Amino acid sequence: MQYTFSDKIATLQPSAIREILKFTADPQVIPFAAGNPAPEAFPTALVGEITSEIFAERPIAALQYSITEGYPQLRTMLKDMLKSRYHAGRDSDELIIVSGAQQGVELATKVLCNEGDTVICEKPSFIGSLNSFKSYNTHLVGIELQDDGIDLTALEDALKANKNVRFIYLIPNFQNPSGKTMSLEKRKAAYALAKRYGTMILEDNPYGDLRFEGEDIPSIKSFDEDGIVIYLGSFSKVLSPGLRVGYVCAPGPIVQKMVVAKQASDVHTGILSQMICAEFLTRVDYNAHIAHLQQIYRKKCALMLGGMDAGFGGKVDYTRPQGGLFLWCTLPKGSDMMGFCTEAVHRKVAVVPGSAFMTSDKDETTSFRMNFSTPTDEQIEKGVDILSKLIRERF
Amino acid sequence: MQYTFSDKIATLQPSAIREILKFTADPQVIPFAAGNPAPEAFPTALVGEITSEIFAERPIAALQYSITEGYPQLRTMLKDMLKSRYHAGRDSDELIIVSGAQQGVELATKVLCNEGDTVICEKPSFIGSLNSFKSYNTHLVGIELQDDGIDLTALEDALKANKNVRFIYLIPNFQNPSGKTMSLEKRKAAYALAKRYGTMILEDNPYGDLRFEGEDIPSIKSFDEDGIVIYLGSFSKVLSPGLRVGYVCAPGPIVQKMVVAKQASDVHTGILSQMICAEFLTRVDYNAHIAHLQQIYRKKCALMLGGMDAGFGGKVDYTRPQGGLFLWCTLPKGSDMMGFCTEAVHRKVAVVPGSAFMTSDKDETTSFRMNFSTPTDEQIEKGVDILSKLIRERF
Repeated sequence: MQYTFSDKIATLQPSAIREILKFTADPQVIPFAAGNPAPEAFPTALVGEITSEIFAERPIAALQYSITEGYPQLRTMLKDMLKSRYHAGRDSDELIIVSGAQQGVELATKVLCNEGDTVICEKPSFIGSLNSFKSYNTHLVGIELQDDGIDLTALEDALKANKNVRFIYLIPNFQNPSGKTMSLEKRKAAYALAKRYGTMILEDNPYGDLRFEGEDIPSIKSFDEDGIVIYLGSFSKVLSPGLRVGYVCAPGPIVQKMVVAKQASDVHTGILSQMICAEFLTRVDYNAHIAHLQQIYRKKCALMLGGMDAGFGGKVDYTRPQGGLFLWCTLPKGSDMMGFCTEAVHRKVAVVPGSAFMTSDKDETTSFRMNFSTPTDEQIEKGVDILSKLIRERF
Repeated sequence: MQYTFSDKIATLQPSAIREILKFTADPQVIPFAAGNPAPEAFPTALVGEITSEIFAERPIAALQYSITEGYPQLRTMLKDMLKSRYHAGRDSDELIIVSGAQQGVELATKVLCNEGDTVICEKPSFIGSLNSFKSYNTHLVGIELQDDGIDLTALEDALKANKNVRFIYLIPNFQNPSGKTMSLEKRKAAYALAKRYGTMILEDNPYGDLRFEGEDIPSIKSFDEDGIVIYLGSFSKVLSPGLRVGYVCAPGPIVQKMVVAKQASDVHTGILSQMICAEFLTRVDYNAHIAHLQQIYRKKCALMLGGMDAGFGGKVDYTRPQGGLFLWCTLPKGSDMMGFCTEAVHRKVAVVPGSAFMTSDKDETTSFRMNFSTPTDEQIEKGVDILSKLIRERF
């Protein structure tokens, strides 16, 4: 049989990251292309203990159907935590548990966008979210990301030029892929622009707690007196990505429609996973836990940057992130970036070509993404050496 | 702010079942409206033991990111099991793990259907799937379900009358909500019709192993020499619905597009849940396990039917299912079914109005769905007594 597919899916390519992740199943390849938390960041003993107790005390609840909105105890904890810790979430907001923040992106798109509606995002931006937007046939407009966040002039131009802008997608903290952080001034200005032009902001904050340098900057959601911000949080980077638990805090009517859409999508997020997250928040000293994670990533990032400072010979630009898991390297103008990445993987170092993070195939870039959380320290040193040698040969 | 939603979601109502499930949080209400496995059907001790060992031996694997296709060991086991046990799955088929069979329904719709394309289904059919189809703005055509399966004449008429029929959605075993089973002849005939008219079949089989009477009938997928059947299986009814693990066995190109769509949806299904399912299949005596489940549901179904036979006074028609979790009652023609269901819930017995399972709001029905797996034996007896009294009063 000759199979035909829906227009929205037919043109969607498999995520380059996922494809490269498969490639990195080869243990010989140094995984600078991934985005996995460091193995030593997982509180395995605590989670093991929690899980044993769940099965000793509440096994039926852990295996039975649950409600679409999410495990009630976890929802309450997260609402409280958002308020007390991040000053985010008003009385008019609600919270739904989702199967990773990725599902929050998909549900926001499905609930808000007709085919052809516009979504504005940073350029570059997270490939998983770009694919969600594309998978609903939205019109994607990428706005240049500057060192302190999105280009506000270009953002306002885009808001003027496009009629049905349903939301602006932003990753303000240690952005994936660039590692850049949006300044407080720009967060406020972007919020004011969204309000003025009657659109919403989809604020994706998976890395916010992983700041290993500088001072925390308030989330855009914390300014949201007008009910225009959909905030996405996640357990993937602070506890475990494999459990697939994230959450959306958004105005009540938005969350209610997300519940309807999620019923038709996966009914509810795995309840054992949700119970593990709730118990984790109850038992852990959260400040001490994230201080431990920050220490791991501060060290790994410094190790990678140190090697690059010494070996890249000033021929490649790169960001110096204050947190998160990624940094963004830019080869000299006019370079063959794809050729560089291909040669790197032949030499057993995988990085992600920057083109994966562009909004359109026509966008040219000489950048690529590096990740410092997945590789071991030895792999960081060895991988940076291999890349340094390749740079010296080519530039 | 005045929120507006996408056309596809704006008109979608919250699932009546889910809404009633919330209502049944009241422990005073007898839950004939739910669809939960019986608590005694969960192998809690085994799952607890498996989970402890996973955290003792492979904690990082259980918490880290995994691949979209699913846990490789589980995929291999399921492919083998489908072949050896159900004679389903050819070399040209692939298998993807999904977050419950509900996600399989959603992915099939997203991957295959443009807005306005036609999906044909049984009438009545499973509300969660109907909502998935509607959430992509498909054109839904419901075909009368007879005692031995879909009306073939009406099916062929619909295949002739509608141009872009992307698939026929069927639940051949102990259908939800009707409890009816499709005969072998009709399975073969429906397959032949799909082949003749160049469309696919989406075969949903969550209850197949729960046959407590009569002989197994081969799945439609087992005839699939032409690569036109997408088969959905699930751990929800044989192990645990809370883990959210199902699977899709379908021709390679279909599964490949589902992988792309799933990447943009929830990245992958919770890996701890998948590891639990794989270990469960490895360790359990599967035949003994499902014999145990069959025994539980055979007894519960007989208890409910016995009470109905004695108390309903021949005034209400109902199915006598050979397996699964549901039976379908039909009040006399012209009855006020909604009024009946409302009065029942006032008297603390929740059933699901049949209108929830229709393809269109305009379809009239005097039927409602009853579930015998969720209530205790005492609740079955008491609830059927309450309904019997109500029937005697009204008819």
